[in-house]
Amino acid sequence: MKSKELSVDLGDRIVSRHRSGEGYRTISAALKVHRSIFDRMGSGGPLFIDVTWHPAGDPGSDKETSSMIITSTAVNYCGLESVLHLTCCNQTQEKITAHLNKAKRLGLKNIMALRGDPIGEDWVEEDGGFNYATDLVKHIRCEFDDYFDICVAGYPTGHPEAESYEDDLRHLKEKVDAGAHFIVTQLFFRAETFLKFVKDCRAIGITCPILPGIFPIQGYHSLRQLVKLSKLEVPEEITQVIEPIKDNDAAIRSYGIQQAVEMCKVLLASGEVPGLHFYTLNREVATMEVLRQLGLWAEDPRRPLPWAVSAHPKRKVEDVRPIFWASRPKSYIHRTQDWDDFPNGRWGNSSSPAFGELTDYYLFYLKSKSPKEALLQMWGEELMNEESVYEVFTNYITAQTNRNGHKVMCLPWNDDPLAPETNLLKDELEKVNRRGVLTINSQPNINGKPSSDPIVGWGPAGGYVFQKAYLEFFTSSENVTALLQVLKKYEPRVNYHIVNVQGRNTTNAHDMQPNAVTWGIFPGREIIQPTVVDPVSFMYWKVMLFPLSNHL
Amino acid sequence: MKSKELSVDLGDRIVSRHRSGEGYRTISAALKVHRSIFDRMGSGGPLFIDVTWHPAGDPGSDKETSSMIITSTAVNYCGLESVLHLTCCNQTQEKITAHLNKAKRLGLKNIMALRGDPIGEDWVEEDGGFNYATDLVKHIRCEFDDYFDICVAGYPTGHPEAESYEDDLRHLKEKVDAGAHFIVTQLFFRAETFLKFVKDCRAIGITCPILPGIFPIQGYHSLRQLVKLSKLEVPEEITQVIEPIKDNDAAIRSYGIQQAVEMCKVLLASGEVPGLHFYTLNREVATMEVLRQLGLWAEDPRRPLPWAVSAHPKRKVEDVRPIFWASRPKSYIHRTQDWDDFPNGRWGNSSSPAFGELTDYYLFYLKSKSPKEALLQMWGEELMNEESVYEVFTNYITAQTNRNGHKVMCLPWNDDPLAPETNLLKDELEKVNRRGVLTINSQPNINGKPSSDPIVGWGPAGGYVFQKAYLEFFTSSENVTALLQVLKKYEPRVNYHIVNVQGRNTTNAHDMQPNAVTWGIFPGREIIQPTVVDPVSFMYWKVMLFPLSNHL
Repeated sequence: MKSKELSVDLGDRIVSRHRSGEGYRTISAALKVHRSIFDRMGSGGPLFIDVTWHPAGDPGSDKETSSMIITSTAVNYCGLESVLHLTCCNQTQEKITAHLNKAKRLGLKNIMALRGDPIGEDWVEEDGGFNYATDLVKHIRCEFDDYFDICVAGYPTGHPEAESYEDDLRHLKEKVDAGAHFIVTQLFFRAETFLKFVKDCRAIGITCPILPGIFPIQGYHSLRQLVKLSKLEVPEEITQVIEPIKDNDAAIRSYGIQQAVEMCKVLLASGEVPGLHFYTLNREVATMEVLRQLGLWAEDPRRPLPWAVSAHPKRKVEDVRPIFWASRPKSYIHRTQDWDDFPNGRWGNSSSPAFGELTDYYLFYLKSKSPKEALLQMWGEELMNEESVYEVFTNYITAQTNRNGHKVMCLPWNDDPLAPETNLLKDELEKVNRRGVLTINSQPNINGKPSSDPIVGWGPAGGYVFQKAYLEFFTSSENVTALLQVLKKYEPRVNYHIVNVQGRNTTNAHDMQPNAVTWGIFPGREIIQPTVVDPVSFMYWKVMLFPLSNHL
Repeated sequence: MKSKELSVDLGDRIVSRHRSGEGYRTISAALKVHRSIFDRMGSGGPLFIDVTWHPAGDPGSDKETSSMIITSTAVNYCGLESVLHLTCCNQTQEKITAHLNKAKRLGLKNIMALRGDPIGEDWVEEDGGFNYATDLVKHIRCEFDDYFDICVAGYPTGHPEAESYEDDLRHLKEKVDAGAHFIVTQLFFRAETFLKFVKDCRAIGITCPILPGIFPIQGYHSLRQLVKLSKLEVPEEITQVIEPIKDNDAAIRSYGIQQAVEMCKVLLASGEVPGLHFYTLNREVATMEVLRQLGLWAEDPRRPLPWAVSAHPKRKVEDVRPIFWASRPKSYIHRTQDWDDFPNGRWGNSSSPAFGELTDYYLFYLKSKSPKEALLQMWGEELMNEESVYEVFTNYITAQTNRNGHKVMCLPWNDDPLAPETNLLKDELEKVNRRGVLTINSQPNINGKPSSDPIVGWGPAGGYVFQKAYLEFFTSSENVTALLQVLKKYEPRVNYHIVNVQGRNTTNAHDMQPNAVTWGIFPGREIIQPTVVDPVSFMYWKVMLFPLSNHL
């Protein structure tokens, strides 16, 4: 197994979560994980995930599937605190510095510093490069001071290439002394292996936190391959159990979960572990089950804010966004990634920074990951008449299959199926879409629902959330003329912004002030108003609104 | 009459109010006006008031009654835009610069630049000083660039010392060319006098706004004295009316109002006046009546925020304050006068700047203006027992007379009688004060009252205001122990901060975050949360809380 050591951030954040009594668990992820895996793994509230680094796979590139970009997606778009692995062998110092600079630019804060595996069977020292993880740790500290939190790997039974267990412990001490903040261990099969290792570390003066690497056995063949790569020995008591059931996958998985749970219980009871690190091999099912049995999978449907909070260090204070991007948060994050300040408390404070331009690439890339054929099935092959467009929108709203038997799961302006809270308006939306009021964003009015409400709730416990009703739609200029007549009756309670493709803007919003449309009242806190209609940003949204319709 | 010309600010603010259709009226005030006159004059929403400058009265000093400090009080504490007069004759440049620097430091933005009256009967030019208002205007522009808005005086019938009307017009043109922004005229008795003057000004290239000075005749003798001092001539048609009724004060006042109303109507109808400036001679009754008859006294009980907004240029953005100072706003403004930023949108953004220290002088000065005897009558001569203290508090709450027949109008922690909204809690407060829970600040809970509510309303029309209930009180440590037991039942909805005179602080507020206790929801705007309980500032409030009790 290549570089399957995993890293963990035990910085300020972990400490504060410890205080608040939340369980620790970290989840590893390898390359090519998808957004949906992030979402499923993220729903249990891990302290962080980590992303491995395979030098052969161009891991520092701008490719959508590079380690660098996957970690950035997890941090910036999915709000998951993440640790990026970095290996140093067979690379120049300049290349490594460039990777670290890029990571910093993307808002990544945590690095798992590894040597990496040799290219051939045997290790060849490289001149002018780094031959040990210790060199990499020193380099990071030297070039980036305290910016990164650094994790290093520990080997409870000694590194396979080390001369002895004691010799390997001394190397670990060197890595920590060079500036690492904490240790995550290679997997092991017995709790006492880890506990002895921790004791030995403490004895030679390693004082930093040490996280155990937990590997729930998930199959006979994957276990065999893993121990071969990592040169580990499976204890007799485990081989005795699994050899007889080696063709029964379900039984082995069940045993693996059982075995991991027992081991974790011993570790947690020892008081020696500040958290658990799981080797998931990109499969979250077993890990989730282990955590559930340990009572650590505290799935909490509550959202801190009504939109996904980014884990980017600069963005962490952000607590207001314009509603226009509610259905396309990624494009908003992309556009505003170069902002130095993010709005906090009030949109007005930060409305001045310009929105970045969206390149066509991002316009498409951020739009939808569905392949073209799937889109054609959902949206139809040919534009027949206005009504056929109305039908696409209506089918999206109702989640019913279209005349070809396909569900409309997304629209160019909506990455995902209808949000649960929009469902509260489903009947009304269906009616108006059938009549050519093509809705792309909406929220119902909410008057003081508990913050724990499963559909519209967000924020700390004991609060109340509120919304002004909001509707965003395309319609004909004839409808607009009629609407303007009707809306006169609702002044000043209804605000509107009407803009056509030429950019003519009609509004009754005074002074172009932002309008809070979602807010929450909480015990012992200030009022939070996380979503606004901002007339200035609306014009930027508009610029992207019409081009997107070309994708339909 | 000395220096009774008046000045007007026609900067951005006047223009924006013009757009929103509000009437223009400005009100003059001389030295030694009281807070209550400010409040009465301010209730009609004047564009500004102005404060005259009498060199003999030490007008630039720190005395409570100096022109400088009165103007500062009007601006900083009463929220009235103000214009400070400044005369230049018989003063050194250094002295004038020092006055202007002080005005700037206090947040004053508007200066009426005047020459001033000669000390003896005849004018004596001074070497190295300024002999004309033009010199003063040039000096202000030269030393302070655009910081101040400058007003100069215009004489519709020519300055009495001028060689001719035309010569005086040329002097006025020089003053404007030197950098004045607008003109306020000396009083006059006929609309056509002013309209001809404006026409003549325009003809020689004076393009700035010109405000007419209106003087409602208020008595026979005051009129005679005024015309003597200002060397004006009362027109025949006015003398004919008032001579026969010269001993009937009421009839003259009534005529004066009538005459001013007629003249103002002609002026307003001409389209030549951007506003009206009133010479009140510190008596507001006649001016208010004139404005009422003109339909310009648009008394609006609505407050922009639940506390009085300061007119200090830096403070204008301020929209959050800690609740502790609600009953002593002057001490809060004084303590925070050196802040560079004021909280806007959220208290947390600006909670770091330290609160200034309160000197004993301000502790007393800001406390109460009542003379000592009045205080002793209200609070009693002697401290008999605990109950006698309870009684003082209870009498303050109920507004009933004490055993000596005196009403308790203030407490050391409360400058003014009970606020109307506190009256909503009167019965409950009376009960607890009788039992030794000595309340000094409170607000009832309010759940969505219209922003136009006469008692608790504030902010723009069409909104809703909310409050968390709040109570601040002194009580015995035995009561505290009992309370802590009771409060357990109300976690987390009730937050408390308990502090004793030694500074021991007991609280259930987490993370020392500010807690919004007043907020408002408005059409087309963000949520405003103007009052918070801030744990950090509470400790500063506490420092002043206990010493104040020595005054009781």
